[in-house]
Amino acid sequence: MAEDQVSRREFVKMAGAAIGGLAIGAVGGYSLMPAKTTEVEVPVEVEVPAEVPEHPWTYTKIDPDAAAARAYEAYFVAGCSYAVFEGVIGELREQVGYPFTAIPTQMSVFGKGGIMGWGATCGTLTGAGMAINLVSAGATINEVMGWYTETPFPIYMPDAPVKAEGELPTSVANSPLCHASVTNWSNATGYAENDPERAERCGRLCADVAKKVAELLNAEADGTFTAAWATPDSVIECGACHGADGPVNNVFAKMDCDSCHIDPHN
Amino acid sequence: MAEDQVSRREFVKMAGAAIGGLAIGAVGGYSLMPAKTTEVEVPVEVEVPAEVPEHPWTYTKIDPDAAAARAYEAYFVAGCSYAVFEGVIGELREQVGYPFTAIPTQMSVFGKGGIMGWGATCGTLTGAGMAINLVSAGATINEVMGWYTETPFPIYMPDAPVKAEGELPTSVANSPLCHASVTNWSNATGYAENDPERAERCGRLCADVAKKVAELLNAEADGTFTAAWATPDSVIECGACHGADGPVNNVFAKMDCDSCHIDPHN
Repeated sequence: MAEDQVSRREFVKMAGAAIGGLAIGAVGGYSLMPAKTTEVEVPVEVEVPAEVPEHPWTYTKIDPDAAAARAYEAYFVAGCSYAVFEGVIGELREQVGYPFTAIPTQMSVFGKGGIMGWGATCGTLTGAGMAINLVSAGATINEVMGWYTETPFPIYMPDAPVKAEGELPTSVANSPLCHASVTNWSNATGYAENDPERAERCGRLCADVAKKVAELLNAEADGTFTAAWATPDSVIECGACHGADGPVNNVFAKMDCDSCHIDPHN
Repeated sequence: MAEDQVSRREFVKMAGAAIGGLAIGAVGGYSLMPAKTTEVEVPVEVEVPAEVPEHPWTYTKIDPDAAAARAYEAYFVAGCSYAVFEGVIGELREQVGYPFTAIPTQMSVFGKGGIMGWGATCGTLTGAGMAINLVSAGATINEVMGWYTETPFPIYMPDAPVKAEGELPTSVANSPLCHASVTNWSNATGYAENDPERAERCGRLCADVAKKVAELLNAEADGTFTAAWATPDSVIECGACHGADGPVNNVFAKMDCDSCHIDPHN
């Protein structure tokens, strides 16, 4: 990139030098001329593409509610991961334009259903990570992850619900995983995984995560971001032996151990 | 770099036009012409996005071994997710240039350690998903996921190992999750999570996944891609009740249930 920027500057200098040089030549020429002629140079600006900016791309504060509404709609287009990525980056594309016009947000579709339906990391968090990491080093990602695992969802209430009307019952995922999040919600509410209410719940969850991402990035932009999430007790307790400082030292994670594992020591 | 080469040519043309235009004007000056106006093109760098190709971006076959070597090196720069994304996209950037020059592969760093150390989806799979989905609709992602859960890793043998020399013992993750993959390997090999051998294992795993992604995308480009992964028995058995067609219908996943859950029905 640097080399190209230099080459641009050289070109600009070149053009300038050529013009300057000839102008002087022309003036010199005129000083020998009997006839009184003048020459007027009319500069014409020519647009030239700029370089792609260095990573991270400059973040401009966006409206968290606009990101939420965009994410909710996007969920019904291409799933949860795309919804959050498009919810945030789409707002930047609309407000800032280039370079956000240069990234196809459809590249985030793969994250849906915990990566193409595998039930691993909730796609909203993959989309959130991609969006945050495009415009920052990622300091707020840990906060989104922690907040996701401990917050009763869904919160968002769309103006025009797509799959189910009215308020929906909530549940806490206790996990960043798609299948754990969905199953906890199904068990807490009685809705089947493929009921329209479950799809509606996931669509509203996308709005909640996109809004949170925008709020955290805005806070970071204002210099007011502070981390609120604390490591779960189970990670501290199990980590005493299984973590990096423990005698077993065979686990590296921040996920609540109890959300999946029954303590074999009891 | 196509975009920049074009802009360079424009500059050359512009510089030439400027010089030519003034030369004529100067010569004209000597020929006793009356006052005249000469247009001088002045290159001005402004942010004009080049036309971004439609998603998915056109894939050009890359060398799987080159992607593997690039991913291995990248792991020690910014972790597993970046390693696989940069391993594949970096090869395309070098071979194809634009538009692959326009995407900052550092946006994938967040996936490391199962998203910033959470131990969720292995970062190699997040990086793989991002790379595959940038250049395709993602048909091969399911195959990478399945292959990852069933293959003994690491396979790659670097020319210049960074953290540990020689062959390393292998293990099968039985899961797409970072902490499950790492813990299974630690338990199978006796290496602690923070031993240099574990970092070396993850670096080589990045090379293995990047190579697999390149092989699958190349096969898809050749029209020879066929899916080999089959749904695990546990997903079929548990899914009979908990899946979309079952009476409980509260689980949506392809991950091997037995890798985390003890069957409560026995």
